[in-house]
Parts: sequence; structure tokens; C-alpha cells
Amino acid sequence: MKNILKILVLVAFTTTILVLGLSSGAGAQVPSAPVFEGKTTLLRPVGYREWVFVGSSLGLSYSQNLQQAPSQNSAMYHNVYIHPAAYREFAKTGKFPEGTMMAMEMFSADVKKEPGLQGSYEKEFMGLEVSVKDRSRFEGAGWAYFNFTEGMGKLKAKTEPFPQSAGCVACHSQKAETDHVFTQFYPVLRAAAPK
Amino acid sequence: MKNILKILVLVAFTTTILVLGLSSGAGAQVPSAPVFEGKTTLLRPVGYREWVFVGSSLGLSYSQNLQQAPSQNSAMYHNVYIHPAAYREFAKTGKFPEGTMMAMEMFSADVKKEPGLQGSYEKEFMGLEVSVKDRSRFEGAGWAYFNFTEGMGKLKAKTEPFPQSAGCVACHSQKAETDHVFTQFYPVLRAAAPK
Repeated sequence: MKNILKILVLVAFTTTILVLGLSSGAGAQVPSAPVFEGKTTLLRPVGYREWVFVGSSLGLSYSQNLQQAPSQNSAMYHNVYIHPAAYREFAKTGKFPEGTMMAMEMFSADVKKEPGLQGSYEKEFMGLEVSVKDRSRFEGAGWAYFNFTEGMGKLKAKTEPFPQSAGCVACHSQKAETDHVFTQFYPVLRAAAPK
Repeated sequence: MKNILKILVLVAFTTTILVLGLSSGAGAQVPSAPVFEGKTTLLRPVGYREWVFVGSSLGLSYSQNLQQAPSQNSAMYHNVYIHPAAYREFAKTGKFPEGTMMAMEMFSADVKKEPGLQGSYEKEFMGLEVSVKDRSRFEGAGWAYFNFTEGMGKLKAKTEPFPQSAGCVACHSQKAETDHVFTQFYPVLRAAAPK
């Protein structure tokens, strides 16, 4: 009888610990943190539409070439998400922790032709870009930028980061307000930051 | 000794059950379902910025008065969220369950005056509207619409729904594609619906 009880206690406590482990942090609901193959190949994050949305923009871009840019960009919405674990850490400390992952979805903009309807909405899914902060993998500031877009609305399963010489790296470094993140354009992060 | 073991077993199992209860469903991370005072007064939902974002639009509105509308609406972004429990049910069945709650945040649109920057982004928080499906509380189709906006960016703690004779009720009933929800403007819901 004593032995049976001992086994029961063990089973119950093990279950408790397992369940506590699973339910702590963001891991319980949202697949967590970046998954790499080798040092720098990022696997496409899954479930990012259930991350925390931080802001949308329409046709927003920094461009050296003002003549060309509007035609390429004016029709694109950008929806930006941050992984929930990084969101909570940022809300607490105002800093983006190692392993922070953000996702930017692109959509074409369209106006529906109906009587009385005006303005624009998000129509077709166009592509996905992701940023990751990991100083153990990436030189310089420790952020890297990944484009998963293979064609219009088609995504790769994995991809290499842009080189550190790419325009996106320089622009995030020079223009973004908080540690390479454009918090100036993300009202949810501005509101969440500790005052 | 036997008694101590029995108590330990009880404690361990109780903990397991409690933790399992807390970690199941959306309740673990996101405060759940609508909270009413009396039959129809809705308390402002908390934590809706961690719900599932479904789409953004800029200046989108149905308006009888095309002359007036653009000046009022062209500068407003609408960010729309759905409660995670309703999102998961919709992804499974294509239907919005009783208790579905959606939140629409409004932001002013602004273009930052910087060299090389074009397009618009979400600047100031302007207001919050919420919809709830609950046939036990609301007549007709069972949906009700709540405006929590008290002034520019200021919110009420609780509010009554618009009357069933209001324009929003009729418009959602006539123009929205899926059970009074404008899924035609929400790419995340269009993608999540069962095929």
C-alpha cells in the first residue's frame, strides 16, 4: 500500500511539474523563439498571426529614389507583429531581449467598388519578412533581417539573412527609434513601454 | 506516514487539476469572454491588444454622405481584433460562436516629415469600438455594437450598446460577408476559415 501511494505521489508531482513547465511563458500557446538550421538559416516562424500585433502602415518606406518608390510601395500595407514573450519583456523593461523575433506581413491595398464605400483595406497576402535579435549569431548590433517571400504570396520554408551590408540593416540602425525597431511607427509598443 | 502520503497525493492531484484548468483554452493568457453588468451594459474588455489581429484599413467606411465622409474618415486607421477563443472556433467551423467579441481600435494617420520617408503610419490612439454576439441578450441577429470612446483617445469603463435601429447594426447586417462580420476586409479571417 505504501509503495502504491509513493508511486501515486511521484506520478502526480511529475504531472504537476510537466504541466507547470508547459503553461509558463508564451510557450504554452505560441510556438516560441527563433528556430535556426546551422548558425544563421532561419526556419519560417509558424503561428505568428497569433503573436502581438504592434501596428500597421500603408506605403511606408524609406527610399533613396523618390521617383520609383511610390509606385512600388504606395499600395502595400505592412502589418507588424512581435513574439509575445518579447512583448512582455519590452513592456516590463523597455528593452528587446535576446531572441526577440518580429514579423512583418505585406498585403496589397484595394478599394472595393461599392456604392458608398470609401477608403482602402488589405486584400491579397504578398509576403513575409522577419527580424531576429541574437548577438551570438549576428555581428554588429546583433539584429538580422530575413525575407521569406518567394513570389507574390508564396513563402520559403527557410532563408538566410540579408548581408550586414544591405540597406535594411543600415536603415534600421540609423532610423529606428528603439534598438533597431521602428517603435515610432508602432502605437502598441509605444503604449506598452514603461513610462 | 500513510496519512501524510495521502495528503501529499491529494495536494499534488489538486494542483495538477488546478494547473490544467488554468492552462486550457484561451483563459490562461487572455482574459476571456464579454463581461456584462446587468443585461446589456458591457465592461470595457482588457488585454484586447493580445487578441488575434485580423486586419487593418485606412479611411474605410460605408457612408450615405460622400461629400462629408472623406474629411472625417480618410485619416483614420482601423485595427480589428478577435478574441482568441472565437478565432480558434471560427478557424475550425467557419462560424462565430456565441460570446464572440471583436474589438476595433482607431488611430489617426500621419506621415512623418523626413527626407526619403513616404507613406502613412498609425499615430495617435483615437478610440475603441467593440462588437459582441450573444443571442440571449440581444434581439434580432444577436449582435450588438458598443462605442467606448469618450473623447479623443479617452475611454469609458462601461457602455450600453447602440440601439438596434442604429446605422451600424443595419450596415453590418446588410454588407458584412460572414454573420455580420466584415470578413471581406480581414485577410487573417479569410485565411483561417475552413476551405
